[in-house]
Amino acid sequence: MIPLHLQPESHVPLYIQLRDQLRALVHAGDLRAGDRIPASRELALQLGVHRTTVANAYAELESEGLISGHVGRGTFICSEDGVVEIPAPPSAATVHGGLRWEALFADERGEEMLSRLTQSAPRGAISFLMARPASEFFPIEELRNCTNAVWRREGCDILQFGSSDGYPPLKHALIDMLNGEGYGIADENIMITDGGQQGLDLLCKAFLRPGDTIVTENPTYPGALAIFSSARVRILGVPMKTETSPGKLPGVDVSAIESVLLQNRVKMIVLTPDFHNPTGTTLPVPERRRLLEIAARFQVPVIEDHIYARLRARGELVPSLKQLDRSNLVVQIDSFSKIAFPGLRVGWILAPATVIDRLRLVKQSTDLHTGHLAQSILAEYMRRGRLGRHLDRMRKAYSGRLAAMEHALVTHMPPGTKWTRPEGGMSVWLELPVGFDSNDLLIHARERGVLFAPGRYFYFQNPQPNTLRLGFTGLSERDIARGVATLADVLRNEMRKRQRGARRAEVPRVALV
Amino acid sequence: MIPLHLQPESHVPLYIQLRDQLRALVHAGDLRAGDRIPASRELALQLGVHRTTVANAYAELESEGLISGHVGRGTFICSEDGVVEIPAPPSAATVHGGLRWEALFADERGEEMLSRLTQSAPRGAISFLMARPASEFFPIEELRNCTNAVWRREGCDILQFGSSDGYPPLKHALIDMLNGEGYGIADENIMITDGGQQGLDLLCKAFLRPGDTIVTENPTYPGALAIFSSARVRILGVPMKTETSPGKLPGVDVSAIESVLLQNRVKMIVLTPDFHNPTGTTLPVPERRRLLEIAARFQVPVIEDHIYARLRARGELVPSLKQLDRSNLVVQIDSFSKIAFPGLRVGWILAPATVIDRLRLVKQSTDLHTGHLAQSILAEYMRRGRLGRHLDRMRKAYSGRLAAMEHALVTHMPPGTKWTRPEGGMSVWLELPVGFDSNDLLIHARERGVLFAPGRYFYFQNPQPNTLRLGFTGLSERDIARGVATLADVLRNEMRKRQRGARRAEVPRVALV
Repeated sequence: MIPLHLQPESHVPLYIQLRDQLRALVHAGDLRAGDRIPASRELALQLGVHRTTVANAYAELESEGLISGHVGRGTFICSEDGVVEIPAPPSAATVHGGLRWEALFADERGEEMLSRLTQSAPRGAISFLMARPASEFFPIEELRNCTNAVWRREGCDILQFGSSDGYPPLKHALIDMLNGEGYGIADENIMITDGGQQGLDLLCKAFLRPGDTIVTENPTYPGALAIFSSARVRILGVPMKTETSPGKLPGVDVSAIESVLLQNRVKMIVLTPDFHNPTGTTLPVPERRRLLEIAARFQVPVIEDHIYARLRARGELVPSLKQLDRSNLVVQIDSFSKIAFPGLRVGWILAPATVIDRLRLVKQSTDLHTGHLAQSILAEYMRRGRLGRHLDRMRKAYSGRLAAMEHALVTHMPPGTKWTRPEGGMSVWLELPVGFDSNDLLIHARERGVLFAPGRYFYFQNPQPNTLRLGFTGLSERDIARGVATLADVLRNEMRKRQRGARRAEVPRVALV
Repeated sequence: MIPLHLQPESHVPLYIQLRDQLRALVHAGDLRAGDRIPASRELALQLGVHRTTVANAYAELESEGLISGHVGRGTFICSEDGVVEIPAPPSAATVHGGLRWEALFADERGEEMLSRLTQSAPRGAISFLMARPASEFFPIEELRNCTNAVWRREGCDILQFGSSDGYPPLKHALIDMLNGEGYGIADENIMITDGGQQGLDLLCKAFLRPGDTIVTENPTYPGALAIFSSARVRILGVPMKTETSPGKLPGVDVSAIESVLLQNRVKMIVLTPDFHNPTGTTLPVPERRRLLEIAARFQVPVIEDHIYARLRARGELVPSLKQLDRSNLVVQIDSFSKIAFPGLRVGWILAPATVIDRLRLVKQSTDLHTGHLAQSILAEYMRRGRLGRHLDRMRKAYSGRLAAMEHALVTHMPPGTKWTRPEGGMSVWLELPVGFDSNDLLIHARERGVLFAPGRYFYFQNPQPNTLRLGFTGLSERDIARGVATLADVLRNEMRKRQRGARRAEVPRVALV
């Protein structure tokens, strides 16, 4: 255990503190050439800071020639002449505990997604971390009835192997629902998946090879980035317009997509036009049409992540890219996870028949097919007309929570803080005053029992450290009000501290990366 | 539609008939330079023959310079000077139906696995095609009770997002079962998957990059090959010893694995030591130890597919590679699909904690987690002690079916036919007399209402066309007896026809590839 003591209260950024303490330990001889220091993820856990804090400190020390990282082996202290002295790997015979599996991993994986963070949340915390449905509305009794009905009627079919493109009754129920919404699709245009995440993964497998290029929003859903980056796909980012003042169009910057397509051979455009995660923005119809026109011109397919679209709290219904598509360009990914029950892990993909044909083979080699029981229950739930009613109820509840969130933000947040004004979905995107880092804010907010998702999680380039995401669907209106008030209070404290610090220090060191 | 008329009764192999008829159509001018001919899969469906038959005919015509295939565009007739004249692709503006998705697929995928073939089986057919559990023993009522219990007790947990490594109650139930079998594992050594297929897919993602090399059995399960080949992994095959005469050891050739490891940088060994699919062989304990010693020496991990191992019908219990492993080398893939209920799509992986840590991240970016409902029901079913009893019942039934299969084979099969003698699992592997092609036999058997899986499906190199797999677990003893008798009758007919043909033809053309 390396003796490190960070002071979160200090005006010196945590990563600077960490960098300086590690440097001092080397100079004092407590850490010596060849010593292995913990992986950034491990040290971050030990110190209770964000991994980025450790990674930033390591990056600076590495650029100074003080430490050196080696994939699969670890990070080591260099000798004074800057040479790395890594101890020779033990021979096979002397390896204690057998095979060194770490050295065999195919890639450097990032950290786990947000779900892991909630597990370490203080008891009774108000957590804006997740964008997930409200558990208190789950219709357990109704689902239990549906389950009994399908066991009686289809027990053997449910338990036996089935078709890779989905359980027929669920496909039929979805086709009915979608054609009621004006989609005009047939059996050959739909495939059942294990949810939206798998939808993206299957499309990645079907279309992308290492080195291929895609375009997507920056910031975006980290789960999408995890898929593409581990498939060694080049990800080009296009900025989001989060302004919602009159005359400004929110959503992804379509002109920037056009520039990217002009300059790169792009294999695929991946977008969430409705209640984008994390920004909450919705792309207006004229921009949707322009996007499709551009994609048709360059003959680049568009993957539309549609999982939030049915969660509209207010404003006019907007047709999806798939509905506007006249050139067979769009594949739509959808799921029951946000509109209904994430734990069942069921979603679907709408696509031209050729694409479904191919995806069926990919799905087969991935997991044969999606589990039948969850599919059959959802089919029965839809057949009984319950999904529509559940969705109406959810939309009403979430619309109240969104209003509570906005009211609390307007009431409590200090000047210099900005936020998006989503018309639905599950989260609001906040910008702190320039120079503030939401990772550092989280440490203080956490002590006061409030959690949120720092913006850095969602960027894959040009991270804006002063951003954060507030998920509002899983909290009561009262908790939303209390949580935002606390958060605003923590932020004001930090602003005061910083002003004092700036007065005190001869050279202000508050500017962060 | 091209006018083609194949004669299955003829002694001329089908692919030769097809080749000659296509050639004649070109010479007659019915097919002309630039004409597109159907994809092999499509034509095989039209003609009711195996895809390999069409692929073989196309391969010969292509080597003659008569046709030419172009990835993503199709196969075309060449002009007389051998030049391909592919019609220019339509410009974007004139494409009817929009984007040409076929041109964008990442790879050439093979055909669908066997499940698809059963869908086209004649009504009332006796099908040895599949290796799947017997539906008539599914304990629907008991599972319905378990479901009601878990809805009442854990409804909210079931419907909400959960942990990527699995639903805790199921992990606990499995740890209890496995430690009862002597595994000695803890929570950090197990992860729940969507079944054995996903287990392999996740391991492939975690460890293998394009160009990496693995070793596996040849023949083997085509679903495994589909994963590795679409990940662009180099697959080296090691032959199976199917002899079961006294003194000969069945199972994979361990010495051949050693030679491969000596000559190649191998990243992973993938094996099914128990009731191997398709051969039914089981690797004896001394060979297991030798394999582990070799893997430890070369520091190559071993992936053990254990999904059939609990289906032992007779003979002594054999410890798994994982149980014998002293060097932390083995990752074991397992599943409820063969021992219980495939339609629920739940399996698990046993591995060192470091590997589970990594797999958790891979699983998260693949589909977040396995569905909770199926997991919770299986946990409850195990907690009630029902899985063990179900398995006992299945073992007894399958052991009767295996005995019926062997009795029928001994009674009916003509001399020159050989088969393996599995001690459990789901299938028996047959070798027809040399020169016979099981693909051709299937056409005749099918007309008589009997289906099986031709051996070619399972080979990725050096295919032995005279082999076939008979799955026995899904059929009654009576159907097994009838089916094998019919199959033997068809085979004898073919043998007679061939003798007559050989007498008649001046130059015998019976030898197949």
